[in-house]
Amino acid sequence: MNLKLTLLAVSSLVSVAQATLVEKTVIYEQGGVTLEGFQVYDDAVSGKRPGVLVIHQWTGLAENEKRRSRMLAELGYTVFAADVYGKGVRPQVPEAGKEAGKYKTDRGLYRARMLAALDVLKADERTDATKLAAIGYCFGGTGVLELARAGTEISGVVSFHGGLDSAPGMAAVAGKIPAKVLVLHGAADPYVPAEQLAAFQKEMTEAKADWQVVLYSDAVHAFTQKEAGNDPSKGAAYQQAADERSWGAMQQFFKELFK
Amino acid sequence: MNLKLTLLAVSSLVSVAQATLVEKTVIYEQGGVTLEGFQVYDDAVSGKRPGVLVIHQWTGLAENEKRRSRMLAELGYTVFAADVYGKGVRPQVPEAGKEAGKYKTDRGLYRARMLAALDVLKADERTDATKLAAIGYCFGGTGVLELARAGTEISGVVSFHGGLDSAPGMAAVAGKIPAKVLVLHGAADPYVPAEQLAAFQKEMTEAKADWQVVLYSDAVHAFTQKEAGNDPSKGAAYQQAADERSWGAMQQFFKELFK
Repeated sequence: MNLKLTLLAVSSLVSVAQATLVEKTVIYEQGGVTLEGFQVYDDAVSGKRPGVLVIHQWTGLAENEKRRSRMLAELGYTVFAADVYGKGVRPQVPEAGKEAGKYKTDRGLYRARMLAALDVLKADERTDATKLAAIGYCFGGTGVLELARAGTEISGVVSFHGGLDSAPGMAAVAGKIPAKVLVLHGAADPYVPAEQLAAFQKEMTEAKADWQVVLYSDAVHAFTQKEAGNDPSKGAAYQQAADERSWGAMQQFFKELFK
Repeated sequence: MNLKLTLLAVSSLVSVAQATLVEKTVIYEQGGVTLEGFQVYDDAVSGKRPGVLVIHQWTGLAENEKRRSRMLAELGYTVFAADVYGKGVRPQVPEAGKEAGKYKTDRGLYRARMLAALDVLKADERTDATKLAAIGYCFGGTGVLELARAGTEISGVVSFHGGLDSAPGMAAVAGKIPAKVLVLHGAADPYVPAEQLAAFQKEMTEAKADWQVVLYSDAVHAFTQKEAGNDPSKGAAYQQAADERSWGAMQQFFKELFK
């Protein structure tokens, strides 16, 4: 019935069918610490293309981040999934909370680790270094907001169910936030009280940042993670609707950033 | 550089180039009052297609609503722009406020007027009556939320900078909201206090509705309306970023509803 929707679907299939993903483990370092990131791009795409940095959740760079990185590569981007923690540091719950806490309480170190990863992404010959974005999940969703607060010269950041609080003395500075900010948030996320959401909006507005917040009903923490299970009463759970909607919102955002 | 993005752009151009819009004035009635709506569809699209109802702002059905209706028809939908006020009732400011007030204070009448328009849309032979949505601007943004609260059997509603308050005794009823709800909202809209936004979320959550709210930074009331000017300090102003983002969010929502 709808000619345009039909054509869109076909062009998407063609693109995916043509994708030839190349994956690489990349060893890099920051502050003397060895880090092990993951690079992926579509070899069927020629020339330079926008680059997307992916920041992992509290358990460190693992399969979830690699899966999202591949999905981004299939969209035509060159992708680098950062390793904030260090080679071999892939904690499980509850140790993951302790490891994440090191960086949440030392945002300077967290920023430095992400900027080192961004340098890896920018250095790749396939990356158009004028078209960069960062996305992050949970812990990484907090991270990409720190990248924005740091005044990083990138086009935009996307936070998926991340914490929104800033650290004392490290809030966004007025007029110094070049990155557009997209927050994709579970309206029922118990880890982000309404006060924190309001404070974030106030911080970003006072900083004259270009920000958007999307609230998804009945979505709690980790709504993009199938491993979180399906019981929202636990505070973290997968929700297919919010997962698909947030991925679509990110794609719309990237179209705007990289047009 | 990005194969998929390029193909998407081409398919969009093709579709627009092929569009042959047919426009009709439709006289209908509700409660003995004669109403004058506006229908538009793309004659180059064959067969039944999803239908979209458009609810006007406080000045009544006018050029703005017709323009949006044409844009929707170019996307492949059959479109009907309702006339809530009645034939010839097209008030300007400040009379518009008085006219809108009649319906804001009589939500039963408002709902009846929109349902009559929905019947016109459904009756068209081109409309797939199992795939219906409604969008509205300002006053009409309030209206489409009333359609949802009324338990109307449609796939979804989209409110652009609408008021979010419900009337006493007419709030959403738990389990009786079939329509998915998308609210596209200026984060700095002075006509919708934070308390009203919070109350709306509470109402919709308690009603177990499927809802989403998108907040656009630095956007005030009427952010989609060029006629509102460019001075946000006046409380109503056009903002190109929020206009384009909200239109994109609506399109993504429709893809989900009508897949």
